[in-house]
Amino acid sequence: MEFKIRAAAKEDCEEIFRMIMELAVFENMPDQVKISHRELENHGFGPNPLFECLVAEVPQEEKSKEGFTVVGYALYFYTYSTWRARALHLEDLYVMPEFRGNGIGKGLLSKVAEVAKTQQCARLQLSVLDWNTPSRDFYSAKGAQDLTVSEGWHLIRFDGENLDNLAKEAPKDGR
Amino acid sequence: MEFKIRAAAKEDCEEIFRMIMELAVFENMPDQVKISHRELENHGFGPNPLFECLVAEVPQEEKSKEGFTVVGYALYFYTYSTWRARALHLEDLYVMPEFRGNGIGKGLLSKVAEVAKTQQCARLQLSVLDWNTPSRDFYSAKGAQDLTVSEGWHLIRFDGENLDNLAKEAPKDGR
Repeated sequence: MEFKIRAAAKEDCEEIFRMIMELAVFENMPDQVKISHRELENHGFGPNPLFECLVAEVPQEEKSKEGFTVVGYALYFYTYSTWRARALHLEDLYVMPEFRGNGIGKGLLSKVAEVAKTQQCARLQLSVLDWNTPSRDFYSAKGAQDLTVSEGWHLIRFDGENLDNLAKEAPKDGR
Repeated sequence: MEFKIRAAAKEDCEEIFRMIMELAVFENMPDQVKISHRELENHGFGPNPLFECLVAEVPQEEKSKEGFTVVGYALYFYTYSTWRARALHLEDLYVMPEFRGNGIGKGLLSKVAEVAKTQQCARLQLSVLDWNTPSRDFYSAKGAQDLTVSEGWHLIRFDGENLDNLAKEAPKDGR
């Protein structure tokens, strides 16, 4: 199947947001999505973009059952390691189920790797759910290291009330 | 013990770098540090800073055995979640061993939480090693969720040859 990978434009946000919802449903956490496609536009395509995004597009004649031609996306941003400096974090990589098996996911991932190299990032990192075996196998086959398994890294989060309470305990006037 | 938490300045980079090395030694990966304090200066205090940093300072009369007064740091940057928008990632939180037990770590963490709230971040996230029980207990006591345990998130990394190879496979001219 023919497909094209290109940088996302503001006009793609409605399609990207549709796929963010599809991915959240797949990950069994659809109620966790608290943003809208308008916010996505503002956050990614304003004066200080908070992320960058690539989309995969198929020709009209290959469009999905529902008529979609933007069928995958890779959303990423830059981070910093005190050991290795600039790094790239791949937040989402998604291809619509009916378009899988055509190399689109691999195309998106390798394009993101190319961006990482161009931007002097020594690392490309991402998070994956342990039960998502197809994705874990895919990354592993491409040579990725599972740092949670090999080094024992755990992901920790403060949010909601915990974050509020912690912030309230901050020392005042710098003390 | 009296201490002050303040935003790091370029002049603090030599001290921060010393503590980055101390932390890497504690984590059993000192050979992983590939940056210098000069790079830290350029990356954090140039026109487009890649991170922000807080330091904890004690008065001269409380200085360390070796004469240091900057005794802890918290280095962080902003990330993006397609579910919750802007987030804060705490890359390093460190207090020199001889100054632990004085609330400095808690002071740094709660100050970072305050920054997160001020910057409209819905989440504060970080990674911790599974054998680092004191840190895991510390975060847990402050209400953090271990997402690797509760939801099964694994941290995946491409670097070195794997990243190079992946980048070389990127589709050319957008295809």
